[in-house]
Amino acid sequence: MTNEHLNTATLAEVGEKGVIAAIQEVAPSSINGDDAAVLTIGPPNTRTVVTTDMLVENRHFNLAWSTPEEVGHKAVVQNFADIQAMGARPIAVLFALSAPPTTELSLVTGIARGIYERIQEFSAELVGGDLTAGDSIVVSLTAVGSLGGSQPPLLLNRARPGQKVIASGRIGYSAAGFDLLKKFGREDVPVEFQKLVRAHCTPPLMPDRGVVARATGATAMTDNSDGLITDLTTMAERSAVTIDLNASAIEPDHRLLRAAELLGKDPWKWVLTGGEDHTLLATTTGDNVSGFRPIGRVIRRTDSPVTIGGEKPKWVEGWGSY
Amino acid sequence: MTNEHLNTATLAEVGEKGVIAAIQEVAPSSINGDDAAVLTIGPPNTRTVVTTDMLVENRHFNLAWSTPEEVGHKAVVQNFADIQAMGARPIAVLFALSAPPTTELSLVTGIARGIYERIQEFSAELVGGDLTAGDSIVVSLTAVGSLGGSQPPLLLNRARPGQKVIASGRIGYSAAGFDLLKKFGREDVPVEFQKLVRAHCTPPLMPDRGVVARATGATAMTDNSDGLITDLTTMAERSAVTIDLNASAIEPDHRLLRAAELLGKDPWKWVLTGGEDHTLLATTTGDNVSGFRPIGRVIRRTDSPVTIGGEKPKWVEGWGSY
Repeated sequence: MTNEHLNTATLAEVGEKGVIAAIQEVAPSSINGDDAAVLTIGPPNTRTVVTTDMLVENRHFNLAWSTPEEVGHKAVVQNFADIQAMGARPIAVLFALSAPPTTELSLVTGIARGIYERIQEFSAELVGGDLTAGDSIVVSLTAVGSLGGSQPPLLLNRARPGQKVIASGRIGYSAAGFDLLKKFGREDVPVEFQKLVRAHCTPPLMPDRGVVARATGATAMTDNSDGLITDLTTMAERSAVTIDLNASAIEPDHRLLRAAELLGKDPWKWVLTGGEDHTLLATTTGDNVSGFRPIGRVIRRTDSPVTIGGEKPKWVEGWGSY
Repeated sequence: MTNEHLNTATLAEVGEKGVIAAIQEVAPSSINGDDAAVLTIGPPNTRTVVTTDMLVENRHFNLAWSTPEEVGHKAVVQNFADIQAMGARPIAVLFALSAPPTTELSLVTGIARGIYERIQEFSAELVGGDLTAGDSIVVSLTAVGSLGGSQPPLLLNRARPGQKVIASGRIGYSAAGFDLLKKFGREDVPVEFQKLVRAHCTPPLMPDRGVVARATGATAMTDNSDGLITDLTTMAERSAVTIDLNASAIEPDHRLLRAAELLGKDPWKWVLTGGEDHTLLATTTGDNVSGFRPIGRVIRRTDSPVTIGGEKPKWVEGWGSY
C-alpha cells in the first residue's frame, strides 16, 4: 500500500502488526519490540520513578477540537509533569491504546507522532505499549523517570513553614481555553484567545524544572492537574501546614479577564479550580529557581489548608473523576 | 458509611478520593499516593524493565464468567509474564481504570484485591495508578521489573541453533477454557474441566522462572500470549532460526482431548493457536531448568520458522487485536 492509502485505512484493514509497525515508524526506538523494555536508568543510587494516566475520548480530549498529535502531546505533558513533580527526569513512555477496529490508522499514528515530538524535547523514548480493540478510544500512557543522587524526591508531605511557594507555568489558562472551545469550537475562537486554547489542547511543560528545583533547595512539589486549590490543599494537608498565596501573584491576567468578560464567567474560578494546566508548584528554602516565580509562602497550619492573603479562597472545588 | 453500604455504592456516590482510599485499603503500599512512585530497583548494574497491557471488558474479560478478583489476577499474570520473559523479576505495578460512574465500588476494589493477592506472591507492590470515568470498563496495568547483573536480558533475537526449547506452564488450556465458557457459562462447565476454565480466568504463573532460566543458560524467552506458533514464529524470525517442536511434548493431554470431544473441536487448534496461556517459552544451552520441560530444539533456518517434527504446523494463525 502507498502511504496515502495507509492513511485512510482502518486498523482492521492494516492489522495489529501493521499498526505497530506504523507506530514504530513515527516513533522509532531501539528498545521497543520485545516482551518488555529494558531501561538503564542511570548511575548507582539512581531511583526509578513511574506514573500513569488514562485519557478517554470526549472526556479528556475531543477530536472535534484537538488533532491526534495534540492528544499525544497532552498525554505526555500530564505524565511528565508528574515525573517532574518528584524532582525526576522523564526518560521513557509506554503507550497503550484501545480503539474501534473502524478507526483510521492516521488517528493512531497521529497520537504516536504527538507523543514522539513531545518526548524528544525531553530526550525520552517511546519504548513499548499495547494495542487493543474496544468500543471507545482510550489512551493510557505510562512514564518512567530517573531520580539521580541520594537526596529525597520532592514529596507532597515535605512543605515546611517559612518556605516560599513557587510556580512554573500559567494558572487558569487550560480551563479558560476549555470554556472557549465549548462556546466557539476550535476554528471560531477569537485569535486573541488562541493562547488559552493551546494551553488546553497542548499544555506547555518546560524540561528539567523538577530536577533544577530539587537541586536548588525545593522539598515539596506537585502539579496543577485537578485545580490550584485542590492540589495545594493535598500538599498542605500531607505536610500539616497552611499555604498562603499572594493574590497579586495569581490574579487573572488581561487574557483571562477579557475571555471572562466575553463568556460572562468569573476568571478567578478558572485560576482557583481550573486544573489541567500542569503548572509545577513547589515549596523551597532556596533562591529563585529559573522558570519559576514566587506565588506565596508556607506558614504554620491555620484553620484553612490554603489561603489567599490570609483569607479562605472564593472557589475551592476542583476537578474530580466522578 | 458502613462497609456493607460501601460495597453497593457506586463510584459516583463514593467520589474519586473515596475510591482511591478504598483501593489503598485493599492494596496497601507505603510508596503509593504522591504524583508518581519512586522505586529502588536494586544494586548498581540493575536495569529497569517495563511493560503494559490493556484489558477491555467483553473482549479480554467477561464479568458474567469472571469475578473482579479474577480480572485483576489475570491482568497481573499478563504483565508479569512479559517481565519474566526478559529474565527479570517483577517488583511493582500501576493500575489505571476507566469505568462508568454507575459502576459499583465493589467491582473496583475486587479488581484491586485480585491484583494485590497475585502480586504478593511475587513480593511486588501496587504503587500507583489512575482512575477516570468512561463508557466502558478498561483496565490498564503497567508492570515494572528488576533485571540484576550484567548479563543480557532474554531477548527474542537470541535463540541459537543447537539450543533446547523449554516451556513452563500448560499450552492450550486457556483457549479450551474459553470455548467451554462460551458453551456452558461459568456455573455449568462440567467439574472435570474446571482446570481449563481456571486457566482462562486465572492463568497460573510461577514466580522467578525468568530469573532462574537466565541464571542457568537461557538466552531467549517469550510468553505464549498470542498463540504458540505465532509467538515462537516471532522469536524464530527475529533470531533467523527455525524452532522445531516435538509433537509428543506438546500434544493435547487427556483433559484437552475430552473437552474437544465434548465440544466437537480440534484440540490441536487450542494448542497451536490458543494464546493467553502465558506459558514461558525459552531457548537454552544449559541444563534443565526447574519448572520447565523440553518441547523442542532450535535448528538452522529452514523454509518454515516453526515446525513440528520437521513438518509445517496444521494450524498457524494466532490471536490478533483486529
